[in-house]
Amino acid sequence: MPRDLKKLISEMTLEEKAGLCSGLNFWRTKPIERLGIPSIMMTDGPHGLRKQQEDDGDHLVIGDSVPATCFPSGAGLAASWNRELVEKVGEALGRECRAHGVSILLGPAMNIKRSPLCGRNFEYFSEDPYLTAKMAASHIRGVQSQGVGTAAKHYAMNNQEHRRMNVDAIVDERTQREIYLAGFEGAVRQAQPWAVMAAYNKVNGTYATENKTLLTDILREEWGFEGFVVSDWGAVNDRVAGLAAGLDLEMPGNGGYRDKKIVEAVKSGLLPEELLDRAVERILNIVFKAADAQQVNVSFDPDEHHRLARFVAAECMVLLKNEDGILPLKKHGRIAVIGEMAKKPRYQGGGSSHVVPTKLDIPFDEMEAIVQGGAELVYAQGYELDKDEPNEVMVEEAVRAVESADVAVIFAGLPDRYESEGYDRKHMRLPDNHNRLIEAVAAVQPNVVVVLSNGSPVEMPWIGQVKGVLEAYLGGQAAGGAIADLLFGESNPSGKLAETFPKSLRHNPSYLNFPGESDRVEYREGLFVGYRHYEARGIEPLFAFGHGLSYTTFEYTEISLDKREMTDRETLRVCVKVKNTGNRAGKEVVQLYVRDTASSVTRPEKELKGFQKVSLEPGEEKTVEFALDKRAFAYYNTDLRNWHVETGEFEILAGGSSDRIALKAVVHVTSTEAVKKTFTPNSTLGDLLADPAGAQVIQAMIQRMNSGWPVIDEETQMMMNAVMLDMPLRSLVAFSGGAFTEEIMNGILRQLNGNVS
Amino acid sequence: MPRDLKKLISEMTLEEKAGLCSGLNFWRTKPIERLGIPSIMMTDGPHGLRKQQEDDGDHLVIGDSVPATCFPSGAGLAASWNRELVEKVGEALGRECRAHGVSILLGPAMNIKRSPLCGRNFEYFSEDPYLTAKMAASHIRGVQSQGVGTAAKHYAMNNQEHRRMNVDAIVDERTQREIYLAGFEGAVRQAQPWAVMAAYNKVNGTYATENKTLLTDILREEWGFEGFVVSDWGAVNDRVAGLAAGLDLEMPGNGGYRDKKIVEAVKSGLLPEELLDRAVERILNIVFKAADAQQVNVSFDPDEHHRLARFVAAECMVLLKNEDGILPLKKHGRIAVIGEMAKKPRYQGGGSSHVVPTKLDIPFDEMEAIVQGGAELVYAQGYELDKDEPNEVMVEEAVRAVESADVAVIFAGLPDRYESEGYDRKHMRLPDNHNRLIEAVAAVQPNVVVVLSNGSPVEMPWIGQVKGVLEAYLGGQAAGGAIADLLFGESNPSGKLAETFPKSLRHNPSYLNFPGESDRVEYREGLFVGYRHYEARGIEPLFAFGHGLSYTTFEYTEISLDKREMTDRETLRVCVKVKNTGNRAGKEVVQLYVRDTASSVTRPEKELKGFQKVSLEPGEEKTVEFALDKRAFAYYNTDLRNWHVETGEFEILAGGSSDRIALKAVVHVTSTEAVKKTFTPNSTLGDLLADPAGAQVIQAMIQRMNSGWPVIDEETQMMMNAVMLDMPLRSLVAFSGGAFTEEIMNGILRQLNGNVS
Repeated sequence: MPRDLKKLISEMTLEEKAGLCSGLNFWRTKPIERLGIPSIMMTDGPHGLRKQQEDDGDHLVIGDSVPATCFPSGAGLAASWNRELVEKVGEALGRECRAHGVSILLGPAMNIKRSPLCGRNFEYFSEDPYLTAKMAASHIRGVQSQGVGTAAKHYAMNNQEHRRMNVDAIVDERTQREIYLAGFEGAVRQAQPWAVMAAYNKVNGTYATENKTLLTDILREEWGFEGFVVSDWGAVNDRVAGLAAGLDLEMPGNGGYRDKKIVEAVKSGLLPEELLDRAVERILNIVFKAADAQQVNVSFDPDEHHRLARFVAAECMVLLKNEDGILPLKKHGRIAVIGEMAKKPRYQGGGSSHVVPTKLDIPFDEMEAIVQGGAELVYAQGYELDKDEPNEVMVEEAVRAVESADVAVIFAGLPDRYESEGYDRKHMRLPDNHNRLIEAVAAVQPNVVVVLSNGSPVEMPWIGQVKGVLEAYLGGQAAGGAIADLLFGESNPSGKLAETFPKSLRHNPSYLNFPGESDRVEYREGLFVGYRHYEARGIEPLFAFGHGLSYTTFEYTEISLDKREMTDRETLRVCVKVKNTGNRAGKEVVQLYVRDTASSVTRPEKELKGFQKVSLEPGEEKTVEFALDKRAFAYYNTDLRNWHVETGEFEILAGGSSDRIALKAVVHVTSTEAVKKTFTPNSTLGDLLADPAGAQVIQAMIQRMNSGWPVIDEETQMMMNAVMLDMPLRSLVAFSGGAFTEEIMNGILRQLNGNVS
Repeated sequence: MPRDLKKLISEMTLEEKAGLCSGLNFWRTKPIERLGIPSIMMTDGPHGLRKQQEDDGDHLVIGDSVPATCFPSGAGLAASWNRELVEKVGEALGRECRAHGVSILLGPAMNIKRSPLCGRNFEYFSEDPYLTAKMAASHIRGVQSQGVGTAAKHYAMNNQEHRRMNVDAIVDERTQREIYLAGFEGAVRQAQPWAVMAAYNKVNGTYATENKTLLTDILREEWGFEGFVVSDWGAVNDRVAGLAAGLDLEMPGNGGYRDKKIVEAVKSGLLPEELLDRAVERILNIVFKAADAQQVNVSFDPDEHHRLARFVAAECMVLLKNEDGILPLKKHGRIAVIGEMAKKPRYQGGGSSHVVPTKLDIPFDEMEAIVQGGAELVYAQGYELDKDEPNEVMVEEAVRAVESADVAVIFAGLPDRYESEGYDRKHMRLPDNHNRLIEAVAAVQPNVVVVLSNGSPVEMPWIGQVKGVLEAYLGGQAAGGAIADLLFGESNPSGKLAETFPKSLRHNPSYLNFPGESDRVEYREGLFVGYRHYEARGIEPLFAFGHGLSYTTFEYTEISLDKREMTDRETLRVCVKVKNTGNRAGKEVVQLYVRDTASSVTRPEKELKGFQKVSLEPGEEKTVEFALDKRAFAYYNTDLRNWHVETGEFEILAGGSSDRIALKAVVHVTSTEAVKKTFTPNSTLGDLLADPAGAQVIQAMIQRMNSGWPVIDEETQMMMNAVMLDMPLRSLVAFSGGAFTEEIMNGILRQLNGNVS
């Protein structure tokens, strides 16, 4: 229903407008009944609904929300690399929101995984911005298809929990653009979320909630974001500064305390009223959109959503290792199921994303249900979930249980207390009692499979002693069923890592600069986050980005490009043929990376620029098509303040993992953008020589200098040449003994800068 | 001869004073005859005299200087870890200077080796500032004991050649203090060089030659430097700004062009005349000191200096690998000597340090001289020194030569063109033809020894295929003799690496940030340079800092401390017993490292804080004593702007290499410095709770908040606690719904900050 918002705003009092810019309570916007402005509700997400009982609306109460389907958390969803499936999850989430009268789901959470230790990594998608953008856009599209909004969070550079409300993230512009903002950019451009949530932290000295560069210049003016910006809960520092920067809605409510500050600022002229009006218009726009979409008597089928959750969970899990084809398990013989997590599964993380599930699958029970008595399952607890110290009695019991078994399946992972909003992990290890159990079991049983439940990478000191590892992530309420399906081959694993598993935390690029000191965290690794780091530094990871095994095999048979030469305004079509060469149906994630073969700026070895998940019957071959445009070849040029492609050759690399590139093709891209050169007193003779006009001016001068410096041998000549080429114009003034004056230099510069087009 | 310099200066005209602040020509200061002010001469060093013929004084002519003894370059000298010996080299250099009427030798060159690629690393000492300081101080003391001055260079953060006149080194304050300035600090405090040379580059935006923080605040006011600051040749940018910042002498001369600018600046009031007077006084002080020390008819004995050079070179070489005791070689049988460098040795680097030697030892000839026909030496060229591409005919010839030999000694390394002032290395590899030769020879001959001549680390892809590696560095004119001495056991190797040899350049911490982009190089690795990086990141190097083998063996038998507890004002005495457990005399470098076991700031795993080289007869045991004061335990605290020791336990680690710590002891150090705490709106509840006064104020408030938030399970409680502890005071304003106002907060802060002592 179209409304004249400008007219409506003109009818609002200053106090009403200021009031609309903060919440009514913890979860709702303020209604203004006299003007017919409704209140809308937001609730936590992102992989399930956390809607508190309305009478608790004034508090943050975790664990007391309405039952809702708990889907795999972001880390798992991203490992599916399945856009359509994530969109389906979004649709289901949207339906549940509508059934509960919720207008905006607070998600997707989409910060980049800078360190494996970030307490909230389990909610986030990936270390890679391209994959993050695609997953976020699918999530947003799914939810919003149901007339329910999303709030992409936490914008931006909120990559740790430690002192998250104070910490100042120091990040250079290019790294921001290429790594930390690119995910948000993709989500906004591709899916236009109703809201974006401004983060707690500072970015280069300014709170994200007061950061005009982020909230207005980049988000709205560059990317075309049309929704409103909401603060993370309690993130507001200076309300007036925030409003001026582009922060529209403060959450939760402030009891009117800060609304008054807005009123005062407008009255005193500190805040132009049109800025306030603009924020109000953005909020109203979404409030009415949400209200129009509201329907009564919407319901959802919890069982159907549970089945979806099980299907999704299986796609999210990653088969990391499968020596001797130990998986899938046979449905006969004696299977030792070890570890308390087999009966008390870890399936979600702590904090605002914590859902009260509609139902919960127990892995052991689901395994029993599949074998239906065909195999004998014996269980041993192995460790105490609420402790870290090994319990040797339990270890001994487990050892006895596995000795007589054909195979041991150990359920291990990170207990709830290890991963939560609010704090970061202290290390990257499993609890000692899990590691102890695995090593003890592997010492007596050659056939060991480890099933891991955790939201982010762990070190695996025992990796050489077990045959199989299934990374189940935090798989949601149906994880238990999905694990059973995968273990016994009811499903074929198709997840791929959306993050690198390093051998040691020390190898992670942010190590030594995480979580910072004195409320300041410097992103010194710059662009080199995740696989970009491990590849550039030649550090072999435990499992590479994109890695994931299947019960079948795939062969990459052909790569073809629709052109060998192109400009940066054209689009390259890439076709990759992939074939299922095994004997069962399976899905492969075809990954496309682009590598700049030579560059004047530091660039990663290669970067993900496309992916598609394809389903293949045995023997079937499919052609997967990709389109690569300028952005696939570009880096962010901080001088141009824009994306830029350097003329040259680029390799197009296809494969099933970042460390298993199967096919390669080369394209030559020509830049259509002239980069204007301006010469200064600091331009070197080399710089001048590299320019046709500069060379003309300077050649004679160099010959004069050369002739003045007699030279003995070839090496000395080489040295003198290098010294001379690196010599700035201004230093000729020093070396010429007064013959080459500043006036002469400035004349040459005027001449050159005038001549250059 | 004491003089009244102030009176003398008062008699000088403004023009004379300005003129004295720049050179007469390339190498001399200006004389003022009417006032009896002499001209003094400076010449290049630092490991030999490069005095050009006086009639060439107007140019930089390399290769045409007077013959002088070429000692091992800095990289080698540092590998001796022998203070007394470096001082002896300094004395010899000083004598040669006096014999040639040179008043100041331009050295030592003492920048930290940030990247193995820096073209001038061969001149520099180490990646470690402690070792750098000790080596530089010894060099300075030696030279200056002869009445000849030194100019410690290049001050500061001049760690690359690439665009060295333009590049802006971005280095955080703590890293500057602990890594890049600490060497200069030690040299100035311990040995007071007559001059310090300001570098070409910028530091954090300001040219080193105009950097008051570096040239005045730190160098003079903090460290007590008493000499003058001279510009690197042609480094002056803005002469007046430089003078104001503390740059006294511009070199070379400027033909009067910039002297006039000084005059104008004084006349216009831009430059206070007392600043000019101060610079003049500093220059005159040294000019007269030098003139007073001048003597006619001083000479030196080139043969004696050559013998010293040979002795020194042997101490500088590092036996990296010696499998099966392949070295020392037997003086009988058939020895294949392979590689053109055996007959055309590389013994020094390119650029301003390039010396015309008095004599030159040829390795092959020196080997012949030692075996005296007892062993048969056969030679094959193996590669062409002036090419990179393998010559397969030569390789084949070498293979034939070694097949019938008992052992092959391959001379390889970096040709002259690989290492020079003026440009950096492009990679860390040997020339392809050297690697090809080594691999071809090792394929047919199990007994291979590689002798390397290079000024900085190289990758060794063939390391597993050869039994012995002798790193000869750039050993000066007598390197050939020293190599022969070591190969045949006439000398026992005692050098230790003063720098890490990584397996791959990619592992180096500056990789990806060297040599920078757009005339800006960010030292993003911060403190983690050299072994500090490899240890902290768990990256195994090819050869660790401090590594070096001997023909005998040493055992570390005991470490003892004179106290277990101390304050940071006391000095700890450490005694380490070391014993020669082999059957020949040898020298061991006993290395002492300190490790902070727990710290509130990031610190390296351990840092070198003492070393001593001891000579031991077979079976002999000696006790080596070290004194550790505050600085050995401190880090640079940027809030205090001073060195600071945190109360706690420190490990004292002793061993023969950074990766072979043999003994450990623990001392508890108590800080005597109270760090004042000031609370702000950004202080978190956790910060307040950690303070007795703060805890009292805040406890009640927290209890109120806790009771307001009902909580279900233990994990959620844990999350809420973490969230609360990280919550800044200011955010209570947001969450309290107006009950906790900014006024209340400010009242609490006033109360707390008033109460805290």
